[in-house]
Amino acid sequence: MTSCDPAPLPRFDVAFGDQLAELFRWRRDVRHFRTDALPAGMIETLLDLANLSPSVGLSQPWRFVTVDAPERRAAIRHNFEACNAQALSAQADGRAATYARLKLAGLDQAPCHLAVFVEDDPVQGGGLGRRTMPETVAFSAVMAVHTLWLAACAAGIGLGWISILDPREVTAALDVPLEWRFLGYFCLGYPAVAREIPELETEGWETRHPVRWLTR
Amino acid sequence: MTSCDPAPLPRFDVAFGDQLAELFRWRRDVRHFRTDALPAGMIETLLDLANLSPSVGLSQPWRFVTVDAPERRAAIRHNFEACNAQALSAQADGRAATYARLKLAGLDQAPCHLAVFVEDDPVQGGGLGRRTMPETVAFSAVMAVHTLWLAACAAGIGLGWISILDPREVTAALDVPLEWRFLGYFCLGYPAVAREIPELETEGWETRHPVRWLTR
Repeated sequence: MTSCDPAPLPRFDVAFGDQLAELFRWRRDVRHFRTDALPAGMIETLLDLANLSPSVGLSQPWRFVTVDAPERRAAIRHNFEACNAQALSAQADGRAATYARLKLAGLDQAPCHLAVFVEDDPVQGGGLGRRTMPETVAFSAVMAVHTLWLAACAAGIGLGWISILDPREVTAALDVPLEWRFLGYFCLGYPAVAREIPELETEGWETRHPVRWLTR
Repeated sequence: MTSCDPAPLPRFDVAFGDQLAELFRWRRDVRHFRTDALPAGMIETLLDLANLSPSVGLSQPWRFVTVDAPERRAAIRHNFEACNAQALSAQADGRAATYARLKLAGLDQAPCHLAVFVEDDPVQGGGLGRRTMPETVAFSAVMAVHTLWLAACAAGIGLGWISILDPREVTAALDVPLEWRFLGYFCLGYPAVAREIPELETEGWETRHPVRWLTR
């Protein structure tokens, strides 16, 4: 096809694009959840969609773990508390109190817990595209998380990303294959409050800045 | 709010969710572009949407560079050729020919070139949420790329991710601040061909597998 060919009919219309922009605006990191369960089959649907994400060499290196066992959830919660206490004591300025107020974890309320790992050297994909930049494997798994996040938000379900954890402790607590590397721990459930503005902004922690870019 | 409260009205309807799933299915890594320019203002619109992406501590660590100067584009192209030749010679099995056929780069055709960097230790965000997992800063910038990718696809615009590059060479060629780390180079333009199946699959390189997960 040359540049003289007519453009193919657009697959997505302007109304969809507007709703998609609305989804990007409304996608929050949710920290306050209702405790009622997600509908049957919902997490499977979300994982199916995440599996459509881009991956380097079509390697699909994302590894998902749903965490249901109370003793495993307790181990994660314990690790979060320990890491959060360290983070609080490391806050040199007056923002420590703000930080503490943020109630970073929906760990106690969210009905669904999901851990995501990456297999950094997967057989699938034959190594294509990652020779000079091996970190693209982990990036692929991150995009799967983001896909799941957007799909959840579109279904009215909130997701909260817990990063204040020790990857080694989480990996040990969940007893996963040795070649899996921990990327993040996610709470899923119906949000208790709808927010258009990030909680970090309403709580005075940080402000969203307009985009800037360089031209070269 | 307790779990007895009624669910808030959904902000997004089922039809939107279906279209979003269709977007996830149709989002391809595009390698064959028409050469005509994107509409005026389009890249700015896409960058604005990418700027709504989640970021650890609301740190917005993504750094965008549009690459227009012919000599800079030539430097990128030269680096791609060198890295691709090394990748080809490193392919031990019979797939080297397949690999060569893939025409991995739309560098010569795409009207718009975008480089994305991350600032790994940004002032914005106050370090929140990244103490135990500093890689969440880069993950934030990866999600901004993915947001831009989806928004582009919804607007009928293809994106191709070039990862077969030497990050140091690209960084030098683009003369960016020292604290920026290269994440990826992206070609944007109207796709020459619409594909539902990834080219890596139609070319016999790799097959998409169904999702699996562990329960713990």
